[in-house]
Amino acid sequence: MENSVLDLIYNHRSIRNFKKQALSSEEVQTLIMAASKASNSTFSQQYSIISVTDPEKLQAFDELTGSRHWMMSSGHYFVMVADQQRNFQIAQKAGVDPYILRTTDKFLASVFDASIATENLVLAAESMGMGATIMGSILNDSHRVIELLNLPKLTFPLLGVAVGYPETLPENKPRLPQTLQHFENGYHLSDRIENQLPEYDQQMLEYYAARSSNQREETFSNHIVSELSRNRKLRSDLLKNIVHQGFNVDELLK
Amino acid sequence: MENSVLDLIYNHRSIRNFKKQALSSEEVQTLIMAASKASNSTFSQQYSIISVTDPEKLQAFDELTGSRHWMMSSGHYFVMVADQQRNFQIAQKAGVDPYILRTTDKFLASVFDASIATENLVLAAESMGMGATIMGSILNDSHRVIELLNLPKLTFPLLGVAVGYPETLPENKPRLPQTLQHFENGYHLSDRIENQLPEYDQQMLEYYAARSSNQREETFSNHIVSELSRNRKLRSDLLKNIVHQGFNVDELLK
Repeated sequence: MENSVLDLIYNHRSIRNFKKQALSSEEVQTLIMAASKASNSTFSQQYSIISVTDPEKLQAFDELTGSRHWMMSSGHYFVMVADQQRNFQIAQKAGVDPYILRTTDKFLASVFDASIATENLVLAAESMGMGATIMGSILNDSHRVIELLNLPKLTFPLLGVAVGYPETLPENKPRLPQTLQHFENGYHLSDRIENQLPEYDQQMLEYYAARSSNQREETFSNHIVSELSRNRKLRSDLLKNIVHQGFNVDELLK
Repeated sequence: MENSVLDLIYNHRSIRNFKKQALSSEEVQTLIMAASKASNSTFSQQYSIISVTDPEKLQAFDELTGSRHWMMSSGHYFVMVADQQRNFQIAQKAGVDPYILRTTDKFLASVFDASIATENLVLAAESMGMGATIMGSILNDSHRVIELLNLPKLTFPLLGVAVGYPETLPENKPRLPQTLQHFENGYHLSDRIENQLPEYDQQMLEYYAARSSNQREETFSNHIVSELSRNRKLRSDLLKNIVHQGFNVDELLK
């Protein structure tokens, strides 16, 4: 099956090498519009988007995400924020109990909303000839991000998105075979991983060896293993910081 | 700015009234492929997709989500699952400590990955003339979903997606004005909500009154207030069930 949207989706790759060209405010508004059109949980629109344009704040993000300056050369930097604060203000004005907004359920709904909107933003950017990288690395120091963006209670930073015009296009990274990721009527992995992972490992080995930059000798399995050897302290404050922002409190105290 | 991808994104609406036409296996494979091409956290591909085709299981989903049969008339039903189990098996085979997979950070990474992939799946379906509804309502009874899909530890069900050919197209629902959802360099809502929410409330009032089905008298503020009056017990087992599946344990015990 083929169409221009599928072509765009199939050709996605994360861009970390940008032309020195800032996005126009019209481009930024178009991306925000695209994000906002996504489905959201119970039509409660439980996220916000913060553009980071202040050079000092950008520098701080560059350091805490370890982006080594490529982020700062992007055309625009967005932070996607879980947001129950806006609906909290609506609840306060109406004099109703905001309890529900503090639950794990509503925190998760915010994460769904923000993530789904993020993909719309990324695809919209790609459709306009730009590229993007979604950066989970802002969670390396969520406390600092909360300070930098002056985030109130019932908000939490989730993802950064660096957007801009690509200087170079990296290769398209092979994904897991569908048989290892798509099941019918239940979770059925056990035999398959024995039988089918080696082939994917080999495919990834060839991909990493042949790609135009950052070549290395690595399979998918090696990659996961090296992920697991990272410093345990990294992001170990995450749940504490989520709770500090006012989420999950009642349930944790049960 | 205009292009076919932006058009598709701008014209999104959730579809709950489907033609009686099951998706072909080629269509399903195309949607899974589109989902898999999305960005994912640290290239760890931390989610799986389960197609629910068994009529008894579908019936159970219909009941627990309260979909009142529209879900069962969809052309295909997917459940997006947070999945650190696959990488756990890779870790076990390599003999490395899987601790990291149990953290809040990795649970959140799974939620990001699954949600971002969900939006690719939805947009791919729309590009092929289909429509979809993303269903957070599977969390009404996450324990039952885990049973129904035989989900092992280190997996968790997140979102259902009902896909099919639309019988009718509902109206396009107006979103929050950008000034209430998009900020620069920090969270700046306070004055804006006083000044700009009434206009949006009025816009939503007119939308609900004029739409072709399920007309009602409701503003955005009323809608949020009625969301907050729901039964507190609904989904109050969510965090407990996430922990039961093996996530967040160490951090909660600190």
